[in-house]
Amino acid sequence: MEKYIIGIDLGGTNCRFGLVSLNGRILKQFSVKVGDNRDHGSITKLLSQGISKLQTGKILGVGIGAPGIVDFDRRMIVSSPHYPAWHNFKLAEKLSKKCELPVVLDNDANMIALGESWIGAGKGIKNFIMITIGTGIGGGIVIDNKVFHGDNGFAGEIGHQIIQYDGQKCDCGGKGCWETLVSIEGLKKLTTKLGLENVRPRELSKIALEGNRSAKLAWKRFGSYLGAGITSLINILGIHTVIIGGGIGRGWDSFIDDTKNEIPKRLYKESTKRLVLKKAKLGDDAGILGSAATVKNYGRNFK
Amino acid sequence: MEKYIIGIDLGGTNCRFGLVSLNGRILKQFSVKVGDNRDHGSITKLLSQGISKLQTGKILGVGIGAPGIVDFDRRMIVSSPHYPAWHNFKLAEKLSKKCELPVVLDNDANMIALGESWIGAGKGIKNFIMITIGTGIGGGIVIDNKVFHGDNGFAGEIGHQIIQYDGQKCDCGGKGCWETLVSIEGLKKLTTKLGLENVRPRELSKIALEGNRSAKLAWKRFGSYLGAGITSLINILGIHTVIIGGGIGRGWDSFIDDTKNEIPKRLYKESTKRLVLKKAKLGDDAGILGSAATVKNYGRNFK
Repeated sequence: MEKYIIGIDLGGTNCRFGLVSLNGRILKQFSVKVGDNRDHGSITKLLSQGISKLQTGKILGVGIGAPGIVDFDRRMIVSSPHYPAWHNFKLAEKLSKKCELPVVLDNDANMIALGESWIGAGKGIKNFIMITIGTGIGGGIVIDNKVFHGDNGFAGEIGHQIIQYDGQKCDCGGKGCWETLVSIEGLKKLTTKLGLENVRPRELSKIALEGNRSAKLAWKRFGSYLGAGITSLINILGIHTVIIGGGIGRGWDSFIDDTKNEIPKRLYKESTKRLVLKKAKLGDDAGILGSAATVKNYGRNFK
Repeated sequence: MEKYIIGIDLGGTNCRFGLVSLNGRILKQFSVKVGDNRDHGSITKLLSQGISKLQTGKILGVGIGAPGIVDFDRRMIVSSPHYPAWHNFKLAEKLSKKCELPVVLDNDANMIALGESWIGAGKGIKNFIMITIGTGIGGGIVIDNKVFHGDNGFAGEIGHQIIQYDGQKCDCGGKGCWETLVSIEGLKKLTTKLGLENVRPRELSKIALEGNRSAKLAWKRFGSYLGAGITSLINILGIHTVIIGGGIGRGWDSFIDDTKNEIPKRLYKESTKRLVLKKAKLGDDAGILGSAATVKNYGRNFK
């Protein structure tokens, strides 16, 4: 009987399901809108229904990437901005019982990192820092080909490194976090300040190319802030491969030169020499693939 | 024959030597001033002379903590602000040949972290972040009871995380690094700005206690900056035990309350709940003891 893994990417708006082969191909996938009912029962039902649609051959296990703070070892969502009712919710255990399958749960950004490690831009690279820039920043730190979890699975909240001590308020409750500047939301605030209303990254790239000075300045600042935060991460972690993905990747050419210019102004030259900045490869599939990779790596521990 | 280890703490001004027992007692120690001759040969000679003075029983090996960027695996000092002539200097290999002993080399702050891990404030704690605040900031990240080195041994340069994007110039060439604010040098600049000239930390604590408003404000800011940087480290690393040592420890009571106040304003409450802030235990002996601990852990790899 053919063996498969189910990878799930649970977002704040949609939940994406994929049937994944053991060599990392998505054979089937679909997306379901997450409704307003976000209690434990509703989401568990939504997930188990999605899983049953993909059941075929022998399913080795289910991997779920979820937004928020996840306790990897205890297999629970500690808290999630998108699911405010969830506190220490043992989602993996609950779903595992319901579906009679091993279920592995991790933070969504960690799953993306592991996907890139498996068959993406991080393939064959032992240590790297994965930065996923969308509405906010997600981070995943890969050490020795595994996601580094810290004490409880909270590691990688790199969007909440403070880069401006007296900066803007952040959704996390703090202020001056990297995410307030380097994110699609941050970029939106920046363009608004520069007099451009409601311009999305793709359009901003377009008008910057056409010579719009505010748009060019917005990308310049964005790229520089990105470079400053990367500098801090490299100084702290001593890891020299950095992979950048997420929705912002579509604007890559608009910001990456300023990022590359900013880093050497701040980073030790010994580290700058070793730095490799890469663009993520897996796009929107990274979450599903990474969730599947996690089952491959850890599934046996979570029957 | 009794077994010993020699631990060496090579600083920018002095070099301290210690004969250490296998259970972590310093049986004999002395300090030598490092002269102006800082070429490879002079320092190797100074070190080998110190080592020969401590030779007794069976010496298992020599550990050296050095200031600067150290490539742990390749056993060399990549660069050091205090020894500008050194670039990719294979100190450990050279000294090992000269003394016919295994020699292990690491960054000084990493050695301090390992000392605290062995018999200090980090004893029995699998993961912790060690912050050594002196003239600058040294950092050591302990994961699974070992110093985390990153790709080449550069990890732990936590003093050069950027906390003020447009901040003061830093010795590393960047600007707004944590170290520009949270260090004895940073504190000196801060007090000068507040109208207090040439006040050392100990005296600053004294006059703050007596009610001097500028001194109180200086410590308040210092403590808050410290808290902000700790927040970033916890968010990135997901490690919840933080040990603070170095010369600044003498002012502990003057800043620690403001540090403890700042963190919950910025850090996720799930992390704040788990946070343990500890004062280092080993004082000036941490470097020698950590260097000895490194030989205990790795000496057999570096014959």
